[in-house]
Amino acid sequence: NSNLKLFSLNSNPILAQEIAKVIGVELGKCSVSRFSDGEIQINIEESIRGCDVYVIQSTSAPVNEHLMELLIMIDALKRASAKTINIVMPYYGYARQDRKARSREPITAKLVANLLETAGATRVITLDLHAPQIQGFFDIPIDHLMGVPILADYFKEKQLDDIVIVSPDHGGVTRARKMADRLKAPIAIIDKRRPKPNVAEVMNIIGNVQGKTTILVDDIIDTAGTITLAANALAEYGAKEVYACCTHPVLSGPAIERIQNSKIKELVVTNTIAIPEEKKTNKIVELSVAPLIGEAIIRVHEEQSISALFD
Amino acid sequence: NSNLKLFSLNSNPILAQEIAKVIGVELGKCSVSRFSDGEIQINIEESIRGCDVYVIQSTSAPVNEHLMELLIMIDALKRASAKTINIVMPYYGYARQDRKARSREPITAKLVANLLETAGATRVITLDLHAPQIQGFFDIPIDHLMGVPILADYFKEKQLDDIVIVSPDHGGVTRARKMADRLKAPIAIIDKRRPKPNVAEVMNIIGNVQGKTTILVDDIIDTAGTITLAANALAEYGAKEVYACCTHPVLSGPAIERIQNSKIKELVVTNTIAIPEEKKTNKIVELSVAPLIGEAIIRVHEEQSISALFD
Ligand SMILES: Nc1ncnc2c1ncn2[C@@H]1O[C@H](COP(=O)(O)O)[C@@H](O)[C@H]1O
Ligand SMILES: Nc1ncnc2c1ncn2[C@@H]1O[C@H](COP(=O)(O)O)[C@@H](O)[C@H]1O
Repeated sequence: NSNLKLFSLNSNPILAQEIAKVIGVELGKCSVSRFSDGEIQINIEESIRGCDVYVIQSTSAPVNEHLMELLIMIDALKRASAKTINIVMPYYGYARQDRKARSREPITAKLVANLLETAGATRVITLDLHAPQIQGFFDIPIDHLMGVPILADYFKEKQLDDIVIVSPDHGGVTRARKMADRLKAPIAIIDKRRPKPNVAEVMNIIGNVQGKTTILVDDIIDTAGTITLAANALAEYGAKEVYACCTHPVLSGPAIERIQNSKIKELVVTNTIAIPEEKKTNKIVELSVAPLIGEAIIRVHEEQSISALFD
Repeated sequence: NSNLKLFSLNSNPILAQEIAKVIGVELGKCSVSRFSDGEIQINIEESIRGCDVYVIQSTSAPVNEHLMELLIMIDALKRASAKTINIVMPYYGYARQDRKARSREPITAKLVANLLETAGATRVITLDLHAPQIQGFFDIPIDHLMGVPILADYFKEKQLDDIVIVSPDHGGVTRARKMADRLKAPIAIIDKRRPKPNVAEVMNIIGNVQGKTTILVDDIIDTAGTITLAANALAEYGAKEVYACCTHPVLSGPAIERIQNSKIKELVVTNTIAIPEEKKTNKIVELSVAPLIGEAIIRVHEEQSISALFD
């Protein structure tokens, strides 16, 4: 592992430490700061010539700062003669801007892929892209890891009875199905419908949740509108308990307040996005993706298949 | 001019309005806002298919926000079938990171050039690059305008007597020379020297400033350390009055306080960077680059030479 170098930028310093421990290396020395006018100043403080470099950075909020840190770091690594520049983005920001939903919109998820390649990235390792099609936005190898096994294992250990896995919308059914397979549970789907334009949505539930322990699963929880409405609908339809889980806790705007005031008993998330101290509550449980990412980095570095990580 | 479209992003909305007036067009309709999690949302609200589009955006602070707005706008314009995408960057951020001063540093000024081209820019119009070599970082045409004539004209109208133009360091002598030619004045140079390591710098002055009206000229004033030390040295050496001027008023950190407490009588700047209200003081005079940029856009659009703008 002598030519493997791991660097952390500013999005996930604790996760980066954990990953370093899993791999059994020290984090590389570099300083990422700001000039007086807000421009990013990066200095890599050890030689990386000929090394396989892995950079840990989620493009979580502040997304534009984190993305520019990453691009500038890639530029510095390239000019310092790194052999490979492997970008570990536990959370890929701008993933929801992955198509033109209206005329004259950008496709920022594709732009970000192009920017990373232009800067000099040679590989990307990421988790739970909002749409798996984003893999095709890259012309460099991309390893796509999944958070569902980590979330499922947590609930397995809890030994809950009479579980139903619930997708909060039709887009998330495949994810709920995967989770249900791991927990050997049935699924249900929240079926939102707007009877007429400008009339409030009706929350219908496909599947039986009466008296059940329900687990809502999503990839991203952002303002938590969808998930808390779904949780409250499950309670109304007679669910015994409502758990919720997701890979990426974006948790912006009113999210925390909504979760605290909702029927959600516990929200289980991973640390692809670092939750700031002031947003942590007793309802939120954080699971680490460090073992998964660490193992993926080792396998990539040793040129082994990473598909075994998904079994 | 029917297929010329002018858009403003968030860095310089007032300058953009002024440029629109000079050209005689309305600003294009587009909204540039933020999703709840801080991601940039752009909607272009009128057709630009087949048009020559000009986008006004300085990459001033917050530089990473302004740069990402610009890149995402370019992506949206490209996908909406703009014929040409002309980036008007009155101030080019990251220009001081234009070379490796130490090992393992990025060259962010070059990275930014690559990112703009990757996004889809077809031309760049800018003013007073910190180093003119940055023009060579681009493989697309770049028009490089100069602020000195605007600054010089202001002082010409003041009809000051016995002027000396002063460069605050050796790097700025060429600029001071250009200014002096326009004002038919001699030049002087602040000659900083550190006699021994870890000993305070000595401010020497090459040229005669005794009893003169001195005008310091620079491209960027950032924390204003250099310019205010230079101003105070000029006063010590017997200058009658000290004016200062620059193209790009970055004015970060202690800049305003330093200027207020210095011997500078008046600081003359252009509006390539919008000065926030709370930083404006009675010492600062803002001149508009709108006539210069407007004329440059008209000439570029009509495929005329813009070199005449420099006479
Ligand atoms: N950061 C964001 N926050 C909220 N909505 C977004 C964000 N980025 C993109 N979108 C919108 O979300 C929609 C895509 O989400 P989805 O339908 O879940 O794939 C598109 O209409 C986007 O305009
Ligand atoms: N935004 C910035 N603020 C202050 N210094 C900077 C900035 N960007 C780059 N630099 C440094 O300024 C020096 C270049 O400035 P100059 O010598 O005037 O060309 C380099 O050593 C850079 O590391």
